[in-house]
Amino acid sequence: MEGTHPNPVLAPLRQVGQQHGLTPLSSRLHEIEAWLGDDLRALDGAIGELVESLSQPDPRGQERRAAGHLLRVPGKRIRPLCVLLGARLGNRGLDGITRDLAVASELIHAATLLHDDVLDQGEVRRGAPTARVEFGNPVSILAGDHLLVQALQRIARCGHLTLLQDVLEVIDEMVRAEALQLARRNLIPEDLSVARKTYLEVVHGKTASLFRWSLEAGATCAGLDSTTIATLGRVGLHIGTAFQVVDDLLDVRGQPQLTGKPVWVDLHEGKLTWPLLTTLERRPSLHRELLDHPGLLVQAQARLRREVLACRADESTAAFAFELAATAHRELHTLPAGKARDALTALIDTIVSRVR
Amino acid sequence: MEGTHPNPVLAPLRQVGQQHGLTPLSSRLHEIEAWLGDDLRALDGAIGELVESLSQPDPRGQERRAAGHLLRVPGKRIRPLCVLLGARLGNRGLDGITRDLAVASELIHAATLLHDDVLDQGEVRRGAPTARVEFGNPVSILAGDHLLVQALQRIARCGHLTLLQDVLEVIDEMVRAEALQLARRNLIPEDLSVARKTYLEVVHGKTASLFRWSLEAGATCAGLDSTTIATLGRVGLHIGTAFQVVDDLLDVRGQPQLTGKPVWVDLHEGKLTWPLLTTLERRPSLHRELLDHPGLLVQAQARLRREVLACRADESTAAFAFELAATAHRELHTLPAGKARDALTALIDTIVSRVR
Repeated sequence: MEGTHPNPVLAPLRQVGQQHGLTPLSSRLHEIEAWLGDDLRALDGAIGELVESLSQPDPRGQERRAAGHLLRVPGKRIRPLCVLLGARLGNRGLDGITRDLAVASELIHAATLLHDDVLDQGEVRRGAPTARVEFGNPVSILAGDHLLVQALQRIARCGHLTLLQDVLEVIDEMVRAEALQLARRNLIPEDLSVARKTYLEVVHGKTASLFRWSLEAGATCAGLDSTTIATLGRVGLHIGTAFQVVDDLLDVRGQPQLTGKPVWVDLHEGKLTWPLLTTLERRPSLHRELLDHPGLLVQAQARLRREVLACRADESTAAFAFELAATAHRELHTLPAGKARDALTALIDTIVSRVR
Repeated sequence: MEGTHPNPVLAPLRQVGQQHGLTPLSSRLHEIEAWLGDDLRALDGAIGELVESLSQPDPRGQERRAAGHLLRVPGKRIRPLCVLLGARLGNRGLDGITRDLAVASELIHAATLLHDDVLDQGEVRRGAPTARVEFGNPVSILAGDHLLVQALQRIARCGHLTLLQDVLEVIDEMVRAEALQLARRNLIPEDLSVARKTYLEVVHGKTASLFRWSLEAGATCAGLDSTTIATLGRVGLHIGTAFQVVDDLLDVRGQPQLTGKPVWVDLHEGKLTWPLLTTLERRPSLHRELLDHPGLLVQAQARLRREVLACRADESTAAFAFELAATAHRELHTLPAGKARDALTALIDTIVSRVR
């Protein structure tokens, strides 16, 4: 069955392994797929139904169509997979509640993409024009609001009030991190160790907090104890941070036909990514020059790109991602062995090896 | 005490009565103030504390400062007053829960203003530059998101899950209505009876739904029965619709020094207001001309203004508001008499007589 209908969640992840010649990883993902295949197809069906309902040609519901536009091109759906695996660790499979929580985590992610593309004036997302290009900024903002409400409604009906309170805190963290990133844009930091702290603060808020919630949400509805939930929360933080660090890496040396977006976009937008921070650290004279002439951040893009690659900032970014993954592995291995733990282990390796 | 510290909620409402020479209304508001004064001051204190915490000079928290910027200039705070009066109808005074719900209703309103000003490219709000002018569009969007989360957190901790589910539905109605209004902007409708329905749909979603929720929320946490809650919900819908119709009226003949915003802004933005709809109905040749040359909606603003006033569309807009108020009064008078009902009655009259 899986052969005729490649699983939309794991198929792209498996490509990662194949393209890197990581047969063991690829075959481990195949095992997860055999085990979780039905869950993942049901999850995709639930998102598909939502996309269908959002995509009706209704001139009165532009914001719904814009939301459907983003969701129709499937993302990697790693966050809902975290919800499912958190639940599986507590021996709870896919049911109405875990499905609602998993879909909600994808919708919150999609809502922030819709808002971020407006804030960043993003043009291309997942290989297609962004919703704001297709429908305009106002509709894209409203589409994000709509998906956020859809997500919160799904979480509210699960009956775990703490999960709802936690997710509101996560959304606020995401908002704060986005604002912090905006405020720091196009500013060359004087003190690079402070800049690294700010970088991590932004990544924790923007990306890692939702990974943490997703694992915790699955574990909570499966009735796992608070120590296990806290451990999974830390695993989520490390996974999420690694995920974003790899995003920074793909901005530097990704293949646009796989990532669906051009390279060097973050640098062009004046974002302080990990590769740029590393470059500034390794090239003090360049750092000094940029501090004295901040306009160079925009004007000397070609030179900056060369410097990033020349000082091997890409390699040390990849190394940082692997380090975060190793920490996640250590945390994870304090939990009982089993299929769910194996699957999470494979997921971590996939995230740091991903090329899209 | 009230003399030295004019109540921030009722003082502006009382001005309404005085300026219109409506002594009976003014003295009725004075009575409400004597009765609810402590509640209203405590409410204002709670919003004030929040504004204080949002206004810290924190360069890392621009979105919080933008939210504080809007909230610092007090609005009319009619929505929180609806929460308090809904609760008082069930003999529940101000406590932690009613205060949280009342503050939440104001925060949701403020969040939508922050987003609307971005969507509408609004320049002036409450007599001050809008947050988006002071802090930029991105920060204003994030500030709205922040206040929305703040509101939902307050509602979540009240322990009435249905109130949370209802408010999510209300927020979605607000989003849909805003999208519908955007889609209809600068379009001259062929069929004016359809246009009136669309107008009411937008007003119900954008404004009336939150008034409805506010009254229902107060009544729900006071333990009132479902029939009473439903009646109050209808009262809220009528009050909210009347409130927006008066807003349309003030766009035509408000005094900017009182409203805090210039006149004819809605018309300039191509919004299909009640006065414009009425004018198109009363001037079929003008309607025809605009259908043939839609550009005139922008180019012939001075002429449109003259036509609105010449055909007395302002007067019939005022009459429509009074009609809605009368319906609200009839609904309200099916409920038991008492101080809370009297106060709501006075509030309805104040809303339709308001000049700011």
